[in-house]
Amino acid sequence: MSDLSQFVIPRGFRFGAAKAGLKQSGRTDFALIVADELASAAAAFTGNRVKAAPLLVDAEHLRATGGRVRVVAINAGNANCAAGQAGIDAARATCKAAAATFACKPEEVFPSSTGVIGVPLPAEKLIAALPELAKSIGSESDHFQQVAEAILTTDTVEKTAFLPFHMEDDNGNITEVHIAALCKGSGMIHPQLVPHATMLVYIMTDAKIEPVLLNRYLREAIEVSFNRISVDGDTSTNDTVLMLASGASGVDFGGQFYLPFAEGLKHVCRSLAKQIVGDGEGVSHVVELRIEGAASDADAVRVAKAIAHSPLVKTAWAGCDPNWGRLMAAIGYSDAEINPDAIDISFGELPICRNGGRATEYDENAAHAYIQQPEFSVAIHLHQGSGSCTFWTTDLTHEYIRINADYTT
Amino acid sequence: MSDLSQFVIPRGFRFGAAKAGLKQSGRTDFALIVADELASAAAAFTGNRVKAAPLLVDAEHLRATGGRVRVVAINAGNANCAAGQAGIDAARATCKAAAATFACKPEEVFPSSTGVIGVPLPAEKLIAALPELAKSIGSESDHFQQVAEAILTTDTVEKTAFLPFHMEDDNGNITEVHIAALCKGSGMIHPQLVPHATMLVYIMTDAKIEPVLLNRYLREAIEVSFNRISVDGDTSTNDTVLMLASGASGVDFGGQFYLPFAEGLKHVCRSLAKQIVGDGEGVSHVVELRIEGAASDADAVRVAKAIAHSPLVKTAWAGCDPNWGRLMAAIGYSDAEINPDAIDISFGELPICRNGGRATEYDENAAHAYIQQPEFSVAIHLHQGSGSCTFWTTDLTHEYIRINADYTT
Repeated sequence: MSDLSQFVIPRGFRFGAAKAGLKQSGRTDFALIVADELASAAAAFTGNRVKAAPLLVDAEHLRATGGRVRVVAINAGNANCAAGQAGIDAARATCKAAAATFACKPEEVFPSSTGVIGVPLPAEKLIAALPELAKSIGSESDHFQQVAEAILTTDTVEKTAFLPFHMEDDNGNITEVHIAALCKGSGMIHPQLVPHATMLVYIMTDAKIEPVLLNRYLREAIEVSFNRISVDGDTSTNDTVLMLASGASGVDFGGQFYLPFAEGLKHVCRSLAKQIVGDGEGVSHVVELRIEGAASDADAVRVAKAIAHSPLVKTAWAGCDPNWGRLMAAIGYSDAEINPDAIDISFGELPICRNGGRATEYDENAAHAYIQQPEFSVAIHLHQGSGSCTFWTTDLTHEYIRINADYTT
Repeated sequence: MSDLSQFVIPRGFRFGAAKAGLKQSGRTDFALIVADELASAAAAFTGNRVKAAPLLVDAEHLRATGGRVRVVAINAGNANCAAGQAGIDAARATCKAAAATFACKPEEVFPSSTGVIGVPLPAEKLIAALPELAKSIGSESDHFQQVAEAILTTDTVEKTAFLPFHMEDDNGNITEVHIAALCKGSGMIHPQLVPHATMLVYIMTDAKIEPVLLNRYLREAIEVSFNRISVDGDTSTNDTVLMLASGASGVDFGGQFYLPFAEGLKHVCRSLAKQIVGDGEGVSHVVELRIEGAASDADAVRVAKAIAHSPLVKTAWAGCDPNWGRLMAAIGYSDAEINPDAIDISFGELPICRNGGRATEYDENAAHAYIQQPEFSVAIHLHQGSGSCTFWTTDLTHEYIRINADYTT
């Protein structure tokens, strides 16, 4: 697959950000993505039963419009969650103001929030910033970059991915279609998107795709990307993935599920998911878990999550300690079907554990050296069936504690 | 209930410990509990599917004897887990040597191990230490204390509890019955005992109780004590709770379930469970979670465990940060039946959250001051039904990371 770092912005969208005064740092904290025309939309939200106010409003709006969005209004610095009716009212007030600004219906506005939970959102600050912001939006790379920056919280870098496609139609005409995506997320990262994110992800394409099909593309891509990562096992109240299709390229896949596009979208989503893990709070090691031979894919995911959420495994990684016994313990309590005497573990290509015991070739120095790398892989074969998964996670460091134990967040 | 710190040793047992050379520190690491006569025994083991070799041997021995034990042989410094047939062989060799030393059957020996996983246990070191150790055992407080000390790993203090009962029989005669218990456990603490512990717990009584009834007393006590604690959410491969009844007091409850004894045992087990949490790795705050109004007791436990395992909640506590939004997020992903708008949270007597939003009386300074205490309570009411639980857990600190990220453990 191609490199995803070249800025190519899909046609039909404008972007921009402003300072509404929500972030204590005084940085930009309010961003807009505006479709020139009503865009097809598909979205997935957190599986957490406590859902932030904007998610409730979003779901209602998508139902009302049949999956159409004109304006995405995103604030950082306040999650607008656990704020009761005041939270809902704040989200609605923002939508109403954005709708007036862009001459659309309030239901065609998609609000998002990220930040501290439990503090009512001061919608008046967003509304006050709207007029200037609306004048500043544009379709250049710089505008896109502004959004990627404004939505960050504890993130240290912007996270984006771009994928241009060259499409040939039945008449041999070649047209170009684009996917561009941006996201944020660093802590409280264990997305369980239902049909699953304080991860916020926005994916734009200029292909013409109806909402039902857009939904299918998005679900399939989420399942192998955002639903396969964890930083700290804390599933957020605000996780949101939104995909918009403007149709502005004029390219229509003819209502069919077009595999190269689906694969391209998965590639983009995996890139973003790995960027989130790589920028996880306090992370010093990114670990790719490759679980194979599980009784089912679901069992493979159980094993990956037990490992990804084990403080003892994650602290061992932080210390570059090849202590594989902690992996065995996590596999054992994962609830997956296992035979303790038929478990193989390797670090990259290094045999570590075979048949549930220390591999004869085990070389502690080599294992230690291997996991000193900032990125490494752990492969586990359970010999129970053909279930498998690839999952990305992190270590647990002093820096994570510093970030999250500093009163007040 | 009475104070549990006065050393009173049940009749019919002898205790002792020696240095077998397993701990790198050179401290005592091999302990014996020897019943003068064959004692009734009930045990519970980890729910982890990866079980250490001694647990497999223990289960086999208890089946073979119908729940009778003469000798408990405990080593620290090596978990004898994930060591294949060599691990089983090492456990059996230890039993055989102990049986020869104390003139009993190998099946009447109950081996236990705690320490690093994945390194074969050098049984020859234990066997070499046996003759001298066998000569040194005795029934005084000092002997008991030796065992409590020898079985420690990352623990910083010995954990013991003692409960004497005065019993009056139908003829008005008063006799005394005793419970004494010792345990270890500090990290990899989230016991899920089935029917559930690198927690090792040994409870001795001189009451006369048959194994079937002893089993019932033990199960009921475990459910409200060891199965209601978590330090790091990592369920160990070695957790073991063993209860022995020597009958040496001559007191027999007449084959009935004697409630005061059951309550006394729960009191002892809760004391030990809280001692384990209090000595959890790197702990600076012990938190009592009181979940009420859940749809079921199982749901109450789900909520407690989600909170107890949330790195974001635990780091907030470490920082004395009253950030209750993190509690809401954990409640939301706990899988318990909830209504986000009907959740009340208080810290001790301080109202924090009411009806899912910030309580009007919320006083951040007071909340901050409250959770600066080394022990505090968090009460959560879900208003869904009458399910409840009390659960004890800890914060997540820099010291936990230091202990567990130090290569090599």
